[in-house]
Amino acid sequence: MYKTCLSIFLPDTLTEETRDPKIKTYKVGIIGRAAAIFRVDEIIIYRDEGEGEAKFIRDILTYMDTPQYLRRKVFPLSPNLKHVGVLPPLRTPHHPTGKPYVGEYRQGLTLKRTRRGTLVDIGANRPALCKEKLTVNKILTFKIIKYGKNIIVEPEEPENVYWGYKVKDTGKSLEETLKSSGKDVVIATSKYGAPLTSILDEVKSRLEKAHDVAILFGGPYKGLPEIEADFTLNTIPCQGTETVRTEEAVLATLSIFNIIMEEEV
Amino acid sequence: MYKTCLSIFLPDTLTEETRDPKIKTYKVGIIGRAAAIFRVDEIIIYRDEGEGEAKFIRDILTYMDTPQYLRRKVFPLSPNLKHVGVLPPLRTPHHPTGKPYVGEYRQGLTLKRTRRGTLVDIGANRPALCKEKLTVNKILTFKIIKYGKNIIVEPEEPENVYWGYKVKDTGKSLEETLKSSGKDVVIATSKYGAPLTSILDEVKSRLEKAHDVAILFGGPYKGLPEIEADFTLNTIPCQGTETVRTEEAVLATLSIFNIIMEEEV
Repeated sequence: MYKTCLSIFLPDTLTEETRDPKIKTYKVGIIGRAAAIFRVDEIIIYRDEGEGEAKFIRDILTYMDTPQYLRRKVFPLSPNLKHVGVLPPLRTPHHPTGKPYVGEYRQGLTLKRTRRGTLVDIGANRPALCKEKLTVNKILTFKIIKYGKNIIVEPEEPENVYWGYKVKDTGKSLEETLKSSGKDVVIATSKYGAPLTSILDEVKSRLEKAHDVAILFGGPYKGLPEIEADFTLNTIPCQGTETVRTEEAVLATLSIFNIIMEEEV
Repeated sequence: MYKTCLSIFLPDTLTEETRDPKIKTYKVGIIGRAAAIFRVDEIIIYRDEGEGEAKFIRDILTYMDTPQYLRRKVFPLSPNLKHVGVLPPLRTPHHPTGKPYVGEYRQGLTLKRTRRGTLVDIGANRPALCKEKLTVNKILTFKIIKYGKNIIVEPEEPENVYWGYKVKDTGKSLEETLKSSGKDVVIATSKYGAPLTSILDEVKSRLEKAHDVAILFGGPYKGLPEIEADFTLNTIPCQGTETVRTEEAVLATLSIFNIIMEEEV
């Protein structure tokens, strides 16, 4: 049994049809939420034509994925994050809201190396100790081994729990980004693609064997550039509107793939 | 051959987890867009527990569905509409952006009765004449019969074109709203429902025979109240987040039903 890694590829222009920075923030927030709802592992931002805002998009998405108790430490005040107050929380298992407890998994920020190991901020009122020597200023996942006067943690990731997404800003075109990404199955989404229903069985059978699945989305005006994909699908057949915005397409498409990939299990 | 009427039922509390009026507006905008993308015929707002904002939600949704050229005439300035500048346009066929032409269908506002009939604003630089006597101050759909010095229109709706949604605010609980709605198939959505995939065939076969389909959504905190539905479905199996917000559920669910109902055709 293996886990499929699901990646979505987004253009750095996805915020371009809005000028309002608060709405831009919220719009990226919709994508962060969609990624978490549908257990996306990676969000990959590629360079589209036009004025992209890759750094803004990456900052917002990374901020959203960071547990509340680490946000202030990891993110200095910045204009990109001015409106983060409007972002909905992800409410994922890696954003615990209760008190830490033995056996719990938590993301922690490595603070400082000491003779005994590494001090880690896991959102308790005092640093935890990890006996390993770790690079400082990194967010890693730990398991709480002891929770008393001293808090002892070990680096360990939970299994079978959705643990957030990674964000990569490649700074390259979609084509170049894809080339170096090593995905098994690449699905482009386009209004001009084949209606998903027409080749559903073929898509399903490819997904069954896939380890790394990429779903590609285009910008709000132009859609996807021409690209070699395993499938180019219209996931919204008979759309009632002239265009579908990137964040709408992301939610709608991931919802369908969630059902398709669920059926396999 | 008949057309299925698709209705979505939404709680008047759907905006309650945001205080920011601009974000509230945008959030309702996501629902208006989702309805148009997936060709929803009716949006029905029911009374939920707590401080609802039915009028605000109805105003925004109705505003969005109104062609740009009639908006100022139909909607006086109001605090509810203060932030409509952030709303994305629907870009549906009933929101034409070009010049009127003979044979075109347009929504028009009935302005005034005259001896010859009724004057109608169809977004041209002069009123059109409809030779019928119509109630004034109503938005109706017309076909342009003549487009010269005089513009002549007749009341007529296009066929097989998505022509926007109606909005109803019932002021009643979901249960009462449903009772008087006369729907053939009622689908409740809930995290605690049966995973859609487990009863997909049954759902499909019921939908095939349905004329009036209702999909019910709950509020952002409590989900749906207990209700008698034909199906209670979890349309987002294995969700990665603790909760799914109403507008997220609407987009995700309509996307799936779009595929299911498409497959029938």
